[in-house]
Amino acid sequence: MAASPSMTDPHPLDAMYEPLAVAVRRLVDFTIRTEADGAAVLAATRLVNETSELLGVALMPGSFGVRTAPDGRVGVLGNVVIGTRNPVAPPLVVHHEADGRVWAEFVLGAQYEGSAGHVHGGICALILDHVLGATAHQPGRPAYTGTLTLRYVRGTRLGALRAEARVDRVDGVKTFAVGEIYDAEGVTVTAEGVFVRPKVQAP
Amino acid sequence: MAASPSMTDPHPLDAMYEPLAVAVRRLVDFTIRTEADGAAVLAATRLVNETSELLGVALMPGSFGVRTAPDGRVGVLGNVVIGTRNPVAPPLVVHHEADGRVWAEFVLGAQYEGSAGHVHGGICALILDHVLGATAHQPGRPAYTGTLTLRYVRGTRLGALRAEARVDRVDGVKTFAVGEIYDAEGVTVTAEGVFVRPKVQAP
Repeated sequence: MAASPSMTDPHPLDAMYEPLAVAVRRLVDFTIRTEADGAAVLAATRLVNETSELLGVALMPGSFGVRTAPDGRVGVLGNVVIGTRNPVAPPLVVHHEADGRVWAEFVLGAQYEGSAGHVHGGICALILDHVLGATAHQPGRPAYTGTLTLRYVRGTRLGALRAEARVDRVDGVKTFAVGEIYDAEGVTVTAEGVFVRPKVQAP
Repeated sequence: MAASPSMTDPHPLDAMYEPLAVAVRRLVDFTIRTEADGAAVLAATRLVNETSELLGVALMPGSFGVRTAPDGRVGVLGNVVIGTRNPVAPPLVVHHEADGRVWAEFVLGAQYEGSAGHVHGGICALILDHVLGATAHQPGRPAYTGTLTLRYVRGTRLGALRAEARVDRVDGVKTFAVGEIYDAEGVTVTAEGVFVRPKVQAP
């Protein structure tokens, strides 16, 4: 089994594009927080446009979508939450436990700010939507979000955070999932989601 | 009145940093969609790091927060939804009608993708959290999100979208706001939010 590819091996396309995304993620942060003078900002803007010219010679149309690598493995590298090629994504690494629970630990910086020093409430919703969906999902039989309810217990400060989710119960095509975001002091936001698994059609 | 500054004038800091954020926003998109070869990607990564060196000579600590410009006006340029200095933000321009309704029209591309070709459900939540908050907010007396409930009617395709929100009713410190995201065919996601306005403390 050691020689067969698994979902935890590095994706072949990652080696080429992931370091670029890592660099752009840092640039996004610096673009918000820089106090460099006008000349430096002007020079930086020119360099960014030069970089886009280099990358723009060949672009996939529309969006990344779900792409199959040469070895047949499926990747969602463009996903806004987990995509390692998407500089907007933190990106989350979602861990799946044997009992179906999922969790992720991550750091949210300046680019996710809402009120001063705090994670935007909608970014908490984005993270929770994703991890609740991850626990409701079964391989090959995706579940779609029906409803999502968020309860904001207190402000979530920018910094190191943890998200958890688990299935509360299943009723027919509906999976009820619950989860929370935690900082060092405890829960900041809770969520309940109803995920709908389309019935398998008879062939 | 023509000579006095208003919130709709360009922010003094915008002229310096906004074109940089616009350029980085395009670079984020290209980073996800590029099919350039390894040599170009390597060269691009080097240029991005060079750019970060330029901008990183002086950085504000932590996050952008709420900053006051030299002319005394308050800016939220780092906000993840509306911040013109934040390359992660679309950025939304939220229009306020005289009757309290708010709306925004915007385009979401590859960097906001969830399932293939569609806006991540959590990004819809982020947009709706923000516009519902904007309608519940009163100048100088901010309202905080208590709960937010999203109902996903159907998938929201990447592209041109519109969000709307309005206050449904006010009950003491609680403001009940509702809103929707629309594509060309109609509503894709609806939201209800309860916003809490802290009581003004006696001095």
